[in-house]
Amino acid sequence: MDETTVPEEPDGLAAFKHAFRRHAAGVVVITALTPEGKPVGFTATSLASLAAVPPLATFNMARIASAWPAIENTDYVVIQTMGVRTRHLAERMSGDHDLRFEGGHWFVGPHGLPILHGVTSWMVGRIVERLLVANNAVIVVEIEEGALGEPDDALIYHERRYLKPGDQV
Amino acid sequence: MDETTVPEEPDGLAAFKHAFRRHAAGVVVITALTPEGKPVGFTATSLASLAAVPPLATFNMARIASAWPAIENTDYVVIQTMGVRTRHLAERMSGDHDLRFEGGHWFVGPHGLPILHGVTSWMVGRIVERLLVANNAVIVVEIEEGALGEPDDALIYHERRYLKPGDQV
Repeated sequence: MDETTVPEEPDGLAAFKHAFRRHAAGVVVITALTPEGKPVGFTATSLASLAAVPPLATFNMARIASAWPAIENTDYVVIQTMGVRTRHLAERMSGDHDLRFEGGHWFVGPHGLPILHGVTSWMVGRIVERLLVANNAVIVVEIEEGALGEPDDALIYHERRYLKPGDQV
Repeated sequence: MDETTVPEEPDGLAAFKHAFRRHAAGVVVITALTPEGKPVGFTATSLASLAAVPPLATFNMARIASAWPAIENTDYVVIQTMGVRTRHLAERMSGDHDLRFEGGHWFVGPHGLPILHGVTSWMVGRIVERLLVANNAVIVVEIEEGALGEPDDALIYHERRYLKPGDQV
C-alpha cells in the first residue's frame, strides 16, 4: 500500500493507544456461571477499587465477550487476583474458550462459583450495577466474602507482556 | 484493648482489603477545572480501559473528594499516565490541596485544562457518564485527543509503595 494512502488514526484513538501503552495494570481473572450452571471466565486488567465502606469494586468488559451472557444474567462473580506463578492460568483464561475450565485447576466455591487454584486472593462480588456504554459494560460489585490465597508476586501486564513488580522508587 | 473484644471486620471488607493488598495498579493523575476556572487534580489507581472503538476509559472516585464538585460540573478531564521520574508529582497530587498547583510543574492545555510536565502521556477525556454508587462515582470518558510524553518507566502502586516494573515472567 502506498504510504500516502495509509489512513491516519483519529486523534482520540491514537491518544488512547499511547496512554494505555504507557500504563501498567494488575491482572485478575473473573469467573461466573451461566444460567445453565456452566463455568465461564476471562482475564482482565480493569479491576478498580470504588470504595471500602461498603466494599465496592468495578471491572469493564465488551458485550461481545463470550462471558457477557453469563455476566448479564447472574448475581455473583468471583474476582481472583493473579500472581506470577499463575501466569499460565491468566493465559489460559484469555485463550480458547473451550479449554478454560478443562482440567483440575479450579474448585467450586460459594454459590457454586468456579475459583482458580493458586491465586493470591479471591473475592465474591454481588453485581449491583451494569452500566452499558456503546457495546461495553462497566460492572459494579459489592464484595461479600473471600479469602487470601497463595503468597506470590503480583502479576502485572504492561506493553503486552507479563511482568513482576520491580524495585521501590 | 483485650484481644477478645477486637471487633472483627465484616467478611466483605476483609476480603476486599486482602484482594487489593495483593493487586498492583498503574498510577495516573486526573486534572480538571472548577466552574470558576481553578485547576484541581488527584492521583488515582483506578484508570481502566473500556473500549478502543470508540476510545473509552473509566476511573472511580469518592464524592467526598475535593475534586468532585469540579468533576460533577465539567465536561472534560485530562488523564496523565505517570512515570517513575514523576513520582513526586503523584505524591503532590495526593497531598495538601492548596499546594497541588503551586509552582511551575504544569501548563495549560486544550480547553484550558491543566497538564503536568514530564508525564509519560496525557489524554483529554470528555465525560460521557457519571454513575453514582453510594457515596462514590464511576466516571466514563471518551478520549478525544492527547500526546505521548516523556520516555520513562511506568509508575506502579502496590502494597502502599511506589514501584517500577520488574522482569518479564
